[in-house]
Formats: sequence, C-alpha cells, structure tokens
Amino acid sequence: MKRIAILGSTGSIGNSTLSICESYPSRFSVLTMAAGNNIDSAFAQCQRWKPKIMSVASEEGAERLRKKLEAAGIEIIEVVFGAAGTVRVATHPEVDFVVSAIVGVAGLEATYEAVKAGKNVGLANKECLVAAGEIITAEARKQGKPLLPIDSEHNAVHQCMRGGRMEEVSSVWLTASGGPFLHTPKADFDAITVEQALNHPTWKMGRRITIDSATLMNKGFEVIEACRLFNLPAAQVKVIVHPQSTIHSLVEFVDGSILAQLSVTDMRLPILYALTYPDRIESDLKFNVLDLKRLDFVAPDLDKFPCLKLAYEAAEAGGTKSVALNAADEVAVAAFLERKMSFSDIPATIKAVLHETSDGHPESINKVLLCDAESRMLAAEIIERKSSRSVTKVLAH
Amino acid sequence: MKRIAILGSTGSIGNSTLSICESYPSRFSVLTMAAGNNIDSAFAQCQRWKPKIMSVASEEGAERLRKKLEAAGIEIIEVVFGAAGTVRVATHPEVDFVVSAIVGVAGLEATYEAVKAGKNVGLANKECLVAAGEIITAEARKQGKPLLPIDSEHNAVHQCMRGGRMEEVSSVWLTASGGPFLHTPKADFDAITVEQALNHPTWKMGRRITIDSATLMNKGFEVIEACRLFNLPAAQVKVIVHPQSTIHSLVEFVDGSILAQLSVTDMRLPILYALTYPDRIESDLKFNVLDLKRLDFVAPDLDKFPCLKLAYEAAEAGGTKSVALNAADEVAVAAFLERKMSFSDIPATIKAVLHETSDGHPESINKVLLCDAESRMLAAEIIERKSSRSVTKVLAH
Repeated sequence: MKRIAILGSTGSIGNSTLSICESYPSRFSVLTMAAGNNIDSAFAQCQRWKPKIMSVASEEGAERLRKKLEAAGIEIIEVVFGAAGTVRVATHPEVDFVVSAIVGVAGLEATYEAVKAGKNVGLANKECLVAAGEIITAEARKQGKPLLPIDSEHNAVHQCMRGGRMEEVSSVWLTASGGPFLHTPKADFDAITVEQALNHPTWKMGRRITIDSATLMNKGFEVIEACRLFNLPAAQVKVIVHPQSTIHSLVEFVDGSILAQLSVTDMRLPILYALTYPDRIESDLKFNVLDLKRLDFVAPDLDKFPCLKLAYEAAEAGGTKSVALNAADEVAVAAFLERKMSFSDIPATIKAVLHETSDGHPESINKVLLCDAESRMLAAEIIERKSSRSVTKVLAH
Repeated sequence: MKRIAILGSTGSIGNSTLSICESYPSRFSVLTMAAGNNIDSAFAQCQRWKPKIMSVASEEGAERLRKKLEAAGIEIIEVVFGAAGTVRVATHPEVDFVVSAIVGVAGLEATYEAVKAGKNVGLANKECLVAAGEIITAEARKQGKPLLPIDSEHNAVHQCMRGGRMEEVSSVWLTASGGPFLHTPKADFDAITVEQALNHPTWKMGRRITIDSATLMNKGFEVIEACRLFNLPAAQVKVIVHPQSTIHSLVEFVDGSILAQLSVTDMRLPILYALTYPDRIESDLKFNVLDLKRLDFVAPDLDKFPCLKLAYEAAEAGGTKSVALNAADEVAVAAFLERKMSFSDIPATIKAVLHETSDGHPESINKVLLCDAESRMLAAEIIERKSSRSVTKVLAH
C-alpha cells in the first residue's frame, strides 16, 4: 500500500490522482492533502478520503473547514493552513509518495521539502522545474530519489529513456499541438482577440495555460523542464509540432534509434505511471493502435512564436532568467486577458523583462521566490510604462 | 574487442555486418565466416578480413578457394565446407558473437549449435524462429543468453520492450509497408503478374522475399518470429499497415502506454544494436525527426491477404504447422515465379499443405529439417496434382 500526499488536491491533477486511488483501493491510500481556497471541495474530500492532515490556503479557510468537519462529526482530521501547512502535508513521515500539483510558485517550498525529506515525488507543478529546477533536481540527485514527471510530454520522455542510458541520449523531442494559431499568418497576430486565443482546438484548460499554448510559451516552459529534469543542455531539447497530440514525445539515441511514446490523452496515465514506477499495472486507459490513422509533424515557426525562442534563451541561461521568463509570462498573459495589451505584446513584454534581468543562480527557494516577485514587479512596470498600443514597437528594438 | 562469426558473410546482412566492422575497427573483429557458393566473394572477404576459418557450401568450392588463397599467398586461413564447416565457424571457442544470416533452413543447425555453445547470437535468419523457434529459444533460455533480433521490426520490438518488464507487455504491433498491392482490389488478385509482384514500391530485395512482401506472408513469418522470440501467444502479436515504414514496430504495455521505435531503414542499425547491446554507440545512421512529415496507418485486409491469416494459424499451432508454412510458401512462390500458377494460388497451395500437415512438435533440428523436406514434397505434389488454372478453385473448399 503506497501512502500518498496530494499537494493541490482540488485541482485537475489532484482530482485525477484521486480517481486513480479510487480505481486501485488496495494499492494506494491518500494520507495527507493540501487544497487552496475552495473549502467546500476540501470538505468533500475530507469526507470521502479521511486524510490525516488537510491543509488549506488561509487561516480563515482552515477555521471554516474545521467547523464544517465538526458539524459533520469528522473530528479525526488535522486541519492546517498556508505554506507551513503544505510543508507538513508534503513531509508527513508516513507519506511514501508526494504528488506535487499546486499551481504556481506556491508549490515550490513544499515540493522542495518533500524532496529533501527523501520522498518519491511526482511533479505536475511547472514552476518546480522552470523556476527552481536547478535547486530541486540537485536535491533529488543528492537524495538518490527519482523525480517522476506527471505531464504527458516529460512522462513520455521518461518512458522512452528506458531504452538506453542517460549518456546514450542525443536529443529529446517534445511534441506540441501547435495551438489555435498554427495556420494563422504572422501578419494577423497583432489582431488576435482574447476570445480567439482562449479557443484552443483540442484541450480545455485554465485561462493562463490556454494562452501559453497559443503563444507556444507552454512548450517553451516544457523545454526548460526537460533540460532540468533530464540534465540536458537546451540544444538537445527540441520541439516538433504534431497537431494530433498522439505521440507525446520522442527520445533520440546516439546510435540513431528513436523511441516515441503514445497513448490516450488522459492525465491519469502519467499519474499512474509515476505512482507505480518502476512497475506498470493494468489500466483501462487504452489507445487502439488501429485508430492511429494519420499523424502529422511540422517544424515550429519561431518567427511566429517568439515566446518559444525566448524560452530557449532562458533555458540556456537558467537561474534568474528562467524565473523571470515564468513570472513575466504570467503578468503579461494577465494583462492580455484584461485587454490591456495585444497578443504580440506578450512576447514583447517578456523579452523586455529578460533583457532587464541580470544573470544569476538563486541558491535557495526563498531567493527564487524573491527573484520571482521582482520579475513580476518589473513586468508590471514595463506594461505600465508603455501604453498598450505602443508597447510592441518600442520593445522590439 | 568483440570477435564475430558471420554466417552468410557474402549476403546482404553479411555485408552490412562487415560495413559495421569496417566503421568500428577497434570494437569489432571478424574471427570466422561462412559463405555459400560465391567463391570469388569469399576469396575477396578472406583477403580483406583474414578470418581464422572460412566455410563455403561445397567441398569443390573449398578446394577452389584454397587454391586461390594459396596463389595469393594467404595461407593462414583454414577453409572448411558444408554444414559441419558452418558449425565450426559458429562455435569457434574464441567467438563472442554470432551473426546468423544464412538464408533458409541451411542456417538452422549452426545457429542452434552457436546458442548451445553459449554464444551471443544476432538472428537475421527467418527459419531459425519460424521453423525451429521453439527449440532455439528454449536452448537460449537454458543458456541464459539473449537472442538479439537483426531485422527492423523485431529489433524495434526489442528496443521498445526495454520500457517495461516482459509480463507488462500486452501486445506487440508489427508494422507492414503493405506491399505493392495494398490498394489493388481483391478481384484483380488472380491476374497479378510476376512482374507486378516483383515491383515492390519501397524495397529492393531478393525474389522470394519480394513476393512474400506482396502476399504479406513475410509479415506472417514475422508474427511467428515475434511469438517465439518474445514468448507471446499469436493473439498478442498484431499487424498494422504503415506505408512509410518509418515506425518499425510498437509495444503496448498493460497500463495503456505504447512505445514505438523509428529510424532510418538501414540494416546496419539493428546489426549495430545487436552487436553493442546493452550499450548503444554513436553512429551516423541518423533519422531527422523534422522529416517525419506524415505517417499513415491502416488495418491489414485479411481477405485480400490470406497468407497473413494462414500464418496466424501456424503461429498458434506452432511446431510442424510453422515448418510447413515456411516450406510450402517457398515452393509455392517458386512455382508462381516459374509461371506455373497464379498469385492467388500461392495462399491456396499453402492452405492445402497446412491442411494435410498433422500437428506435432519436432524436438530436434534434424526433425525440423525432416519435416521441412516432407512439407516441400507435399507442396510440390499439390502443385503437380492440380493444373495451374484450376488449383485455386479446387483447394479453396
């Protein structure tokens, strides 16, 4: 029986993890959980899963949850809150496996502490590798514990890498669906509306990640994640557009053989893989090979998608530049969604922030968080400084 | 330094193996070789590679080769001949790795003796697994030595299987180019000429294997090979038509993940893989992922290609039926090439031979050879009995 801590239990990955635990009750039990501000969901999860500890975002939320649990006669669950609460959830001594799925930098500290405590960790939080990848992977190597990627691309890479040794890998190829503007001419990019950008052809996701998919920044983040996770230079992590998203990634070996992983697009599959690794167990998440029909591949257009190019620069520089890339993107995407600037202003803003960020390698999670806050302020300032109509022209110097 | 024996040194796989040895002179040396009736080629190989032993098909050939070597002042090479000579080549005590690439049942005995002598063996001879697969794989298991497949499909499967344990494999999918008649209506199959059948769209190969590709019997043999090599029932070995032949095969695991292998279509790659396994070494046999462009997949049509269906029956029955399938096919293809019967008569003849073959499991290579000879006689008799114009009607009862 594997005892699991779920950081981000009420989110999409959290729910998929619970669905796996539901399907394999004799293999996995939920020992501790960390939710956010949705106290009703947290309460429902306490009722169903009876974790030893449930952490929520705020002290006030914790108070509300305690009262609801008391009223329902469920008094055995310890309710905690905030960053310290999440750390307790992640490092509980009886926990065997931590699913790190809190969105944003809020997940950094607890994930780092879980790794430091020698836990097996499944990573679904982008920032852990984009902003703090160097620190977290160094700690995992020190502990001799694997960091198991829980997203379809890196999970695919992890599987394909089993076909050889690390030093026999020559390249990793991440596949990208291409987003809604794959066939939109570059000249039309300035006029892209929020509604168009939110209308992703194949995935229904949160607003920021949908915009990140439209700019290909999401793939850029994945390039950085792959660099950190597999300890590869940016030049060895490549991107190919594959609109059907059936092949989740490929790994090329020095002899010229390439392994690819394909499967249904269901997050439960990488979660199950991470939870059972190095074993595989029977599931009903089957893809019928006879349904392959037709797969297309095309090189990404870095002129049309400058975010991907910026991500490669940040991947190579690492440290502060990677932190700034993520922070600036979040602020820029929010400004676009608030209609303060155009779609093309997103890469222009990020480029300006990267330009004004000095190289450096924060050596602790706290320093990463500080750098993140500074980058956000800088991005906001840059957006403020330039009126939304002129930002592109001024910054694209 | 790995010391190699090449059985079938003057054939296509033999030459590709030598090309690999040429490229990596510090890793591989050619210790012994077995050629056939082409004494000029055998002589040239002796000059270039100076093997300790060279075996040729006949005593007369050996005599001619000895004289040529003497005239050239190369007297250190021991020249032997026939089945016993090939066995000596395969079991030389200093040999580390045996490449089994003699075409036909002539390769069976020496390959079996190599396995029995505890050699690492790379298998490129179809008959070793189709006709004698049960015996040879049992001996390899007993010796605890791997049988490394040297053909693109099974080599791909071997690579993909590294992504999990044997018992975690749910299916193997062999890809098939589909041959020249993929889009030919079934009604036109009777009228297929020898010239049409020999005109394979993507591969230039020997005459028999070209016809076997046109009937899909070649894929049927590969199904049997996969069953024996990976110890799987026929129901777990599937075929999918993939005209580009870029993905060489796929392996589906119990959790629903599928791994696929792709690469250039160059036999040196599976040979290199077999020679270096479990390592991989740098080669210039690179496939550019950006050249993937478009991949198509379609289910094979068993009505149009009854040979594939017959192979599944033989795969399931094993033993004598597998031997008979291969023997009958060789005789039937020869009769078609001699214009003694129609293209559709090939499966009809094989079906009749299978029908008249009793179940059984030959327990030695000699008994396999006996069964093979009997099946050939039976096939010839069946072809003789029926005139070429009526064979289809009579046998398709």
